[in-house]
Amino acid sequence: MWADLAPIGRHAASGGYRRHAWTGADANCRTWFQEQAEARGLTYETDRNGNQWAWLGDPLGEDAVVTGSHLDSVPDGGAFDGPLGVVSSFAALDELRRRGAQFRRPVAITNFGDEEGARFGLACVGSRLTAGRLTKEAAYALRDADGITLPQAMEAAGYDPEAIGPDPGRLARIGAFVELHVEQGRALDLTGDAVGIASAIWPHGRWRYDFHGEANHAGTTRLADRRDPMLTYAETVLAARREAELAGAVATFGKIAVEPNGVNAIPSLVRGWLDSRAADQATLDTVVSAIEAAAHEAAARQGVDLTVVRESFTPVVEFEHALRDELATILGGRVPVLGTGAGHDAGILSESVPTAMLFVRNPTGISHSPAEHAAEDDCVAGVLALADVLEGLACR
Amino acid sequence: MWADLAPIGRHAASGGYRRHAWTGADANCRTWFQEQAEARGLTYETDRNGNQWAWLGDPLGEDAVVTGSHLDSVPDGGAFDGPLGVVSSFAALDELRRRGAQFRRPVAITNFGDEEGARFGLACVGSRLTAGRLTKEAAYALRDADGITLPQAMEAAGYDPEAIGPDPGRLARIGAFVELHVEQGRALDLTGDAVGIASAIWPHGRWRYDFHGEANHAGTTRLADRRDPMLTYAETVLAARREAELAGAVATFGKIAVEPNGVNAIPSLVRGWLDSRAADQATLDTVVSAIEAAAHEAAARQGVDLTVVRESFTPVVEFEHALRDELATILGGRVPVLGTGAGHDAGILSESVPTAMLFVRNPTGISHSPAEHAAEDDCVAGVLALADVLEGLACR
Repeated sequence: MWADLAPIGRHAASGGYRRHAWTGADANCRTWFQEQAEARGLTYETDRNGNQWAWLGDPLGEDAVVTGSHLDSVPDGGAFDGPLGVVSSFAALDELRRRGAQFRRPVAITNFGDEEGARFGLACVGSRLTAGRLTKEAAYALRDADGITLPQAMEAAGYDPEAIGPDPGRLARIGAFVELHVEQGRALDLTGDAVGIASAIWPHGRWRYDFHGEANHAGTTRLADRRDPMLTYAETVLAARREAELAGAVATFGKIAVEPNGVNAIPSLVRGWLDSRAADQATLDTVVSAIEAAAHEAAARQGVDLTVVRESFTPVVEFEHALRDELATILGGRVPVLGTGAGHDAGILSESVPTAMLFVRNPTGISHSPAEHAAEDDCVAGVLALADVLEGLACR
Repeated sequence: MWADLAPIGRHAASGGYRRHAWTGADANCRTWFQEQAEARGLTYETDRNGNQWAWLGDPLGEDAVVTGSHLDSVPDGGAFDGPLGVVSSFAALDELRRRGAQFRRPVAITNFGDEEGARFGLACVGSRLTAGRLTKEAAYALRDADGITLPQAMEAAGYDPEAIGPDPGRLARIGAFVELHVEQGRALDLTGDAVGIASAIWPHGRWRYDFHGEANHAGTTRLADRRDPMLTYAETVLAARREAELAGAVATFGKIAVEPNGVNAIPSLVRGWLDSRAADQATLDTVVSAIEAAAHEAAARQGVDLTVVRESFTPVVEFEHALRDELATILGGRVPVLGTGAGHDAGILSESVPTAMLFVRNPTGISHSPAEHAAEDDCVAGVLALADVLEGLACR
């Protein structure tokens, strides 16, 4: 399976993946998914929001056990974030068939669309739409860097954007959703375990900072006459790090857009995106407010106009205790339980469906990078753990 | 003339101009130039480096008087930077014909290619090539943001990149080059004059700072485990401002490129460009060294690898005193003489040819911006001053 998937959307220079939603690379990943489903005699379908489903048993049956993840990537992402969960789902099903498992509940494997939000700036679009946590109107307003709207991109990829919207009937038929994912920190490496169970996802959000200054010539404009938004941006980047350190949270400016972006021009606009997360809501609120206050203070001092827009926000997700405990029982109680700062489709679905997550050890903790890695033994351990979980949930 | 030129390469959203070298907008500007030349019965030619020339008199005659400027722009530049010099040249010629001037020397109007360097990162490519200050090999190595090389871009625009190189014979036939330009500071506004004469161009250069960190997940990577180059960049931006202020120089980071540039990814690379200028070489050296030292200190502290490359450098240009004095005499001695921090083709040519510049008042000092402006009365005063200068040099 990996051999067919590995070259898709791989960027030769960086070695990273560029599988952004509704692009050609994304379409190739989707074709791969459909082929995997059909090769196993599974019932293949896409839902109204473009998420892919491969069913063993009746797609309209009740109390289904669903597993899967996503196939899209961040810009220059790694090979595992997303695909490991989908590949492991197919491999776990193969393992269960090898064991001769008898399924008492419908089982499905999913690929949720546009999980990373790399193209339109909003993460988990496929699961949000399905769970009713993103309206059709808001989805229609999403634009990529080239000005292409989400419905235009979907249509170009052969999907019907008119159909998108909440899908409560589908969610009501799901009894449990389990997502396997490569860990994006080093907690399992530190405990020495190949596989872990998620306790919670930290609350997290994205804020867009627009620093408006005045474009001017970099050679001839006196420093005193400048309104240079790059200075305000720089102060804000350093304030974010300082406030996150103080609070034990994380805060990152990783994306920027500058106008006119010329070597000899003072910018008219610097747009920076803040990503911030913390273990609890109160801490996150404190950090985000402190960063915004520091930015406004610097902007006022430098004659720069600042607007801050919250582009997305996900409250803390505490995964259902009953399902989490069931997984621990199935896996023999020897599995560590850990929180994570990363958002997932499982987090979005957890409000509507009993949801759990399995993590596979990441020896370096590196994620969203071509250097992201998981050892083969650990991946196999992940597949076997997922097979145990599916068997425990669907076959007993 | 302005009416035909004004809409070319104008960006609807910003109101600024995007006339980058060898693009469609540039080609339209070039067509406009050729039409203006032919409408006046001038002999039109392009030289081996793609610079445009419109001759009154023998293009191969000796001791020619040449005037002109450039038609390309920075990203979202103003309407005057460059075009004012070209339009004023044609208008001054019209004025001299109206006066019935008898020309004793050949006169030419020029449009030098790629003055702003907005596309390939190096300013004054057309005049540098002609003056032998940029080798063919170095020019061939220039690439734009899409990886297109300068020769590929020239060829796509219908020019022969094989032909580029120094043109000493052409320069030897020029007795004087006078460039009229909108002022890019507020000196004339402060003295209350419509027109001024340039004394010197400050030494200036561009340095590319590559901050290499480690791409990682913005949500799950502990602050202590990060090697985030955006932090180092931010410290360097603030150091540049601080050092420039201390020295009475200018230093600007106006252009940035980030990889992977994702909201939830710590960057692997932040590339920033420093533009710095000062009244003299020693001051500039001090400022640039201090910024680089501060950047290396921050990089070492943050586990970031830094390389700094000087992409271009232009030493101080002191315009020829004899020609400058001749202009002052022609214009009646009532014209202020002022230095400038901006580079110009005139600065490049000044090593090979007696060169002078006229500046037209800029009431706000704003430049390289859609808000750049010059009053109509001042533009007319500029045309009349240029006509006086051309008459004084070519007709007596």
